[in-house]
Amino acid sequence: MNFGLIRYILGYIMLLEGAMMIIPAAIAGARHEDTHGVFLITLAVLLALGLAMVIKKPKSKLMYAKEGFLGVVLSWVVLSLFGAMPFYFSGEIPSIIDALFETVSGFSTTGATILTDVEALPVSLLFWRSMTQWIGGMGVLMFMLAILPMAGGRSIFLARAELPGPTVGKLVPKMRITAMILYVIYIGLTLLEFFLLLAGGMPLFDSAVNALATAGTGGYSVRNAGISYYNSAYFEGVITVFMILFGVNFNVYFLIILRRLKQVFQIGEVKAYIAIILVCTAVITVNILPVYGSVWQAFRHSSFQVGAVISSTCFNTVDFDLWPQLSRSILLLLMFIGSCTGSTGGGFKVLRVMMLFKSVKNEIRKQLHPRSVSSIYIDKKPVGAGVAESVNIYFAAYFIILALSTLLLSLDNFDMETNITSAVASLNNMGPGLGSVVGPTDNFSAFSWHSKLVLCFDMLAGRLEIIPVITLFSSAMWRRRRA
Amino acid sequence: MNFGLIRYILGYIMLLEGAMMIIPAAIAGARHEDTHGVFLITLAVLLALGLAMVIKKPKSKLMYAKEGFLGVVLSWVVLSLFGAMPFYFSGEIPSIIDALFETVSGFSTTGATILTDVEALPVSLLFWRSMTQWIGGMGVLMFMLAILPMAGGRSIFLARAELPGPTVGKLVPKMRITAMILYVIYIGLTLLEFFLLLAGGMPLFDSAVNALATAGTGGYSVRNAGISYYNSAYFEGVITVFMILFGVNFNVYFLIILRRLKQVFQIGEVKAYIAIILVCTAVITVNILPVYGSVWQAFRHSSFQVGAVISSTCFNTVDFDLWPQLSRSILLLLMFIGSCTGSTGGGFKVLRVMMLFKSVKNEIRKQLHPRSVSSIYIDKKPVGAGVAESVNIYFAAYFIILALSTLLLSLDNFDMETNITSAVASLNNMGPGLGSVVGPTDNFSAFSWHSKLVLCFDMLAGRLEIIPVITLFSSAMWRRRRA
Repeated sequence: MNFGLIRYILGYIMLLEGAMMIIPAAIAGARHEDTHGVFLITLAVLLALGLAMVIKKPKSKLMYAKEGFLGVVLSWVVLSLFGAMPFYFSGEIPSIIDALFETVSGFSTTGATILTDVEALPVSLLFWRSMTQWIGGMGVLMFMLAILPMAGGRSIFLARAELPGPTVGKLVPKMRITAMILYVIYIGLTLLEFFLLLAGGMPLFDSAVNALATAGTGGYSVRNAGISYYNSAYFEGVITVFMILFGVNFNVYFLIILRRLKQVFQIGEVKAYIAIILVCTAVITVNILPVYGSVWQAFRHSSFQVGAVISSTCFNTVDFDLWPQLSRSILLLLMFIGSCTGSTGGGFKVLRVMMLFKSVKNEIRKQLHPRSVSSIYIDKKPVGAGVAESVNIYFAAYFIILALSTLLLSLDNFDMETNITSAVASLNNMGPGLGSVVGPTDNFSAFSWHSKLVLCFDMLAGRLEIIPVITLFSSAMWRRRRA
Repeated sequence: MNFGLIRYILGYIMLLEGAMMIIPAAIAGARHEDTHGVFLITLAVLLALGLAMVIKKPKSKLMYAKEGFLGVVLSWVVLSLFGAMPFYFSGEIPSIIDALFETVSGFSTTGATILTDVEALPVSLLFWRSMTQWIGGMGVLMFMLAILPMAGGRSIFLARAELPGPTVGKLVPKMRITAMILYVIYIGLTLLEFFLLLAGGMPLFDSAVNALATAGTGGYSVRNAGISYYNSAYFEGVITVFMILFGVNFNVYFLIILRRLKQVFQIGEVKAYIAIILVCTAVITVNILPVYGSVWQAFRHSSFQVGAVISSTCFNTVDFDLWPQLSRSILLLLMFIGSCTGSTGGGFKVLRVMMLFKSVKNEIRKQLHPRSVSSIYIDKKPVGAGVAESVNIYFAAYFIILALSTLLLSLDNFDMETNITSAVASLNNMGPGLGSVVGPTDNFSAFSWHSKLVLCFDMLAGRLEIIPVITLFSSAMWRRRRA
């Protein structure tokens, strides 16, 4: 294990986090909030430690899968630990575990909260809380790759561990340029939503934090009533569209910029994603019609919730725990399916679900014709056996972690629905679950500290798509490489 | 598709079912029950139709995987349809869907019931209901193989589709002898339990039906209060031991008969099965101690429920919905894990779960050392890539069916826990689920007719371990074979 390189990466991550904290620190200063000092101290500590760690270059810049996994996981842990400091030391979240939970939830774009009165927080802290989702959405190592020249073209190991999806497609040959393009698209779309909300009359601060929360598909709100606070079909419409847009594979926007529109319509995953959204919105609209009385109101709420859930943003407008069971089951299913690979959304990803169906179909063919050789095709290209197997293993690991988490959570003696949906909501980076304790209008404050740590693990494991996190528990990870 | 051969197989299945119905018909005759006529007519119809179908031998006895799958699935459907007739035409279960549900539940060894007052049924019908589980436990085609010489050694295709587990190990080179040995062990163990119950003072009829229900790991009771009716630690102890024994791979008993005890202790799956039972019983005993006050009582109930759930028998003695959440979560997990391959139990099977863990471990190794080649080992023998993949696909198909079933069940507007655990209890051939509607002390009568049909499908799919059933939905199944 090249610990020198990992130290170097972590140093840059801390410098980056310190630099990003300048924004909330400035807000706190401008508004004369008590948090000003806390932000400045955390920022200073981050910059000092970061500088100390990058001042000496690592002896070797050799990076293998090991270093990629460990580097990414540790980066996210360090990010979360320091990100929690302002919440804790300002006294606004008096429990260190709660502060950590809120920060991990932000960076992992889960958006699950332990706060019972969001509006009581100072504006600077709320802004930092919203920023964590935006930073976590595209990935902090992607950002580092975009601005730092990493040696030897090995940076693909970092990108692979952080970017959602079973495979990483480079847009252009150089990883650094790919990362830059992704970030430019990300910033552009975020700004577009911000201006559209502002143009509709949303206050400046609210427009900014809601755009950040949508872009990262986190779903943190700065209002206790969530998006329903604004009570505006225009705002809900804009947010619905952008939640769905941020769940699309970013390659699509790159292709659009290059005017290769024909290629966009050949991406099976994006077509399936759109189709799922249309069908589910239609079915739920019909199903909840008796609840709302008008097709327009039913459509407004169903499209918002479908967009919110499939993109894993989970902003809330209505308490869908009160909807008929069919609609709730569809939303639960969408929580699992999630958005496209290469987006900021969570869940299994549409591509993985497609590959699952195709694997089953392929297995049936093999059972019927044992001597035939066949592979899975995605967008008319064969998928390597290794990738298909990785997808199956992803699901296996997912359900093993889900089972163990549910067991550990049940020590708190809440009901089964609460335990399972809390674990699912965390692993899929959804935010709220279902049921009496963690439903869309509730929060996670009732859990014990050990349950909150389990959920923190789940949120990080979900954001990093499980495999990098579980490699750390493997003996193969820590064995010395043979010379 | 060799339809002639399938017709021939179905004919024999009907003859077999007719022959087995002689027992309840005789009971009805001896006790002068009104059901006598219904049993005789069903029996006559089965024998007549069966004879008509086997009188002409099929032109070709060639059997491929296709014929194996279709033959097995149709056999079970035919078995269930005719098995339901006595319930329906006697008027004891006035709804045809309910009668079918009860019969499918019996043959699939699920043991989920729609009856609200079991004790009101005539003894002959109750006996038939208990027999269905015993017939379904070891598999009706296995029985056919044991008594019928099937052509060309192709009968492995039938056994493969009906015997639980990812692989079928023949005990001896000839499939027919293997099937015979399995049935002899099955009958021997059933009789042993019967005599042990009888010796403890249980009434003759109750001893018989409880032994049949345990052997098939079905769990149908002839008392409204289930096994708690007898209120005897001895009976519960005997049943606990036999529930666990019927969940063990039957190869173990064959090895014991051959006095190859050393080999028994080399079977990793059986060791894991025993270890899971011991650990879970211990944890639940401690967890429910406050509920029962004494270690002995807590152990009595925890060992019974662990045995009942892991073997998928699900006899009930206590309402474990009232237990602390940790115990309920453990039981839910055991519902999924299930018993050993080659047993009569349901669930995923311990071997599949072991292979799942090993696949994950293997994938981590591959991620860390991409160029290394490695396979999964079970009992120190490498498992073929095809088998490991089949196991992954089994899980994939399982969760796809679970998701679709939950969606369809939610049309009845029960709560999420009810919908999911009903589908799980059916797919895993458990019987009762959890929650307010289908908990251990409740039953399935509240569901609509369409939900009951969905659950019938799930029960059959679970018993036949999914792949044979879903092949029927594949176009590859129905395409003509090229000459």
